[in-house]
Amino acid sequence: MNSKPRVIIVGSGFGGLEAAKKLACKDVNVTVIDRTNYHLFQPLLYQVATAALSPADIAAPVRAVLSKCRNVEVILAEVQSIDVDAKKVKTVDLDIDYDYLILATGARHSYFGHDEWEKLAPGLKSLEDAIELRRRILLAFEYAEKITDEAARRAALNFVIIGGGPTGVEMAGAIAEISRHTLAKDFRHIDPSEARVVLIEGEPRLLAAYPEDLSASARKQLEDLGVEVRTGARATNLSEAGVQVNGEFIPCRVKIWAAGNNASFVGKTLGAPVDRVGRVIVNDDLTIPGHPEVQVIGDLANFPHQTGKPLPGISPVAMQQGRHAARNVLAMTHGRKPQRFRYWDKGTMATIGRNKAVADLRFMHLSGLPAWLAWLFVHIVFLVGFRNRLVVLFQWAWAYLTFDKGARLITRNFQSEQRPPA
Amino acid sequence: MNSKPRVIIVGSGFGGLEAAKKLACKDVNVTVIDRTNYHLFQPLLYQVATAALSPADIAAPVRAVLSKCRNVEVILAEVQSIDVDAKKVKTVDLDIDYDYLILATGARHSYFGHDEWEKLAPGLKSLEDAIELRRRILLAFEYAEKITDEAARRAALNFVIIGGGPTGVEMAGAIAEISRHTLAKDFRHIDPSEARVVLIEGEPRLLAAYPEDLSASARKQLEDLGVEVRTGARATNLSEAGVQVNGEFIPCRVKIWAAGNNASFVGKTLGAPVDRVGRVIVNDDLTIPGHPEVQVIGDLANFPHQTGKPLPGISPVAMQQGRHAARNVLAMTHGRKPQRFRYWDKGTMATIGRNKAVADLRFMHLSGLPAWLAWLFVHIVFLVGFRNRLVVLFQWAWAYLTFDKGARLITRNFQSEQRPPA
Repeated sequence: MNSKPRVIIVGSGFGGLEAAKKLACKDVNVTVIDRTNYHLFQPLLYQVATAALSPADIAAPVRAVLSKCRNVEVILAEVQSIDVDAKKVKTVDLDIDYDYLILATGARHSYFGHDEWEKLAPGLKSLEDAIELRRRILLAFEYAEKITDEAARRAALNFVIIGGGPTGVEMAGAIAEISRHTLAKDFRHIDPSEARVVLIEGEPRLLAAYPEDLSASARKQLEDLGVEVRTGARATNLSEAGVQVNGEFIPCRVKIWAAGNNASFVGKTLGAPVDRVGRVIVNDDLTIPGHPEVQVIGDLANFPHQTGKPLPGISPVAMQQGRHAARNVLAMTHGRKPQRFRYWDKGTMATIGRNKAVADLRFMHLSGLPAWLAWLFVHIVFLVGFRNRLVVLFQWAWAYLTFDKGARLITRNFQSEQRPPA
Repeated sequence: MNSKPRVIIVGSGFGGLEAAKKLACKDVNVTVIDRTNYHLFQPLLYQVATAALSPADIAAPVRAVLSKCRNVEVILAEVQSIDVDAKKVKTVDLDIDYDYLILATGARHSYFGHDEWEKLAPGLKSLEDAIELRRRILLAFEYAEKITDEAARRAALNFVIIGGGPTGVEMAGAIAEISRHTLAKDFRHIDPSEARVVLIEGEPRLLAAYPEDLSASARKQLEDLGVEVRTGARATNLSEAGVQVNGEFIPCRVKIWAAGNNASFVGKTLGAPVDRVGRVIVNDDLTIPGHPEVQVIGDLANFPHQTGKPLPGISPVAMQQGRHAARNVLAMTHGRKPQRFRYWDKGTMATIGRNKAVADLRFMHLSGLPAWLAWLFVHIVFLVGFRNRLVVLFQWAWAYLTFDKGARLITRNFQSEQRPPA
């Protein structure tokens, strides 16, 4: 390595990848470290979980995305901690020195102290999560088809989603749709459209971060699809058999967790102040107190300097912060100070199903078909990699025209294949 | 259920699926039992293992393929044994009665008594196998990129494939291609094209079932890609560190098994004679001795009545036998006798890489580009499901034009995610 400043970016999500792109072919050496070898387009993860898209459709190999500029290298490694005094990133198998650090390790779901619920009700943050949920959802219908016990059959066709944010809304809508359209003609002993989809939210309304009219519209659109929406309801207990909701027991085989997030544990190793969910409370320029060479961005950061509340954990925030952090690094390498970050809020959107969505564009609110078209446009445009964009567009067009979903695979772990009974 | 004869088909591979299609909308009740929910287009499995295609591209949900005719039902279940006297198929959770049985449970790879080698050198029969091999191959390059020990780096870039039949030839060619083209520009500390691909075959030539000129051509085409071909060579020992071949130790991280098959254990539960690798030796009409209501087809069957040797375990044999078995069932339900099966041999082909293949069309032998075009045409035409065909065609066209491979994902098992160190 030559004597250019060395920048380490940990995490290749929306924030980390934008930072890396911005520093590519610049006068710094960049090392991107991630524990996966792909950038994941997380907003479409629910479509993998509901068999509409394949994992590779929403994941782009980080190496390929960043291969053009020789000043960027990519390392597949699991980061354990940051030593801010020694300026080292410690991974399982090697330590790497940095001059500047951009930390973007994101968040996982949180079970509010009930970690034992994770196996019962997987969340939806990684490709592995999505493949596991797809397996459980499809298996539930297979099980219902062959079981003769009526109570067990009904429990297999009950799907309970805990958490009424965008992920919960999208999962509820998508499961209702596959049961009513995709699977409708494929079974002989059950009617998949009898599947009961229950969406549970502790707040008084769905999509609590959206304007009230869009929350109400989302609820209406979900109910049109046959989803049972229960607001002001809390899951107080989970078991294999079902979910306890406000005193009522709902028997169900498949439970999905979309209720809470915890920031990545790596943030806590910085020694900087963190909030209740583990997010690092950053300065208004994204650096941490006492260490201008360390910036934290995306879901791992708590940035309260603009609205008084932390900015939401959504991709536009992460992407803008990623680009800003890269600009700050370049400024510092030229002896200038890091600049204050300002989020430019272009709005948010969530999809519910075919022709169904809500979009808050700030200057106007959209529901139904217009919102869905806006969602479609934005998600196609921002999908990383030209090839993915075409494949996804084709899969969507096909699914739209035929109600068919192409990725209905129940895969298992390697070597869990059946062996002859001993 | 009404009083129509009940036909059970076990297995939804090429043989079972053809039989089911032939019996669809006929005057019988058909139950298809499989332990996966999809029909797998096995000839393209090596393309999943080498990141060219996604699992869903080569797998079609059996239910969807067979949904049109109401006389066909599909059950996801693991068959344990057949009770030919009671005419029952026994699965893990239920027993199902049949009047006619078509058994098509195929084969797995065999390690010649060294079952402990399976974890070291996975084979390539299922989607899970392919995903695991893809993970190992891609991880080897990632590991080589970051390791500083020179011997370990070289071992990570050595790929040993054991078995020079079609699967071994295809895997060797595909790994050589991704290392020389797809990955060429993505690394900073290694040159992926230095990867050493070694193909080991015990017989004196590759593709022993092919004509000699095509074996020679396959070898030449592989060597043009940089593959080291060793015929008359046997792997005498395998370990994490490498493979012992004819006394020489080849250090290598990734080992791939393509050497032998064992028929599914279900065949042995019939009580009919089986051969050395567990295939059921069938009568010339595909039935088993003493039980005309039971037929065995595809890789599970040993059919020696045409050439004196068993027919090869390839999809055209299975498909023709599947259709024949269905016709036999219909004949028997009308009081007629099952008919003798005759295989119509239209030839075989194996692909080696871009513009590289061999094809034995019986009336002529093809090599190189013409063989590759023939291979492409046949594989596109026979891919089950229109949608898959278009997606695969697009992926191939893209890969051909750009040398890019779209499905370079290293996925892990659910909940093997890293946790904070305790």
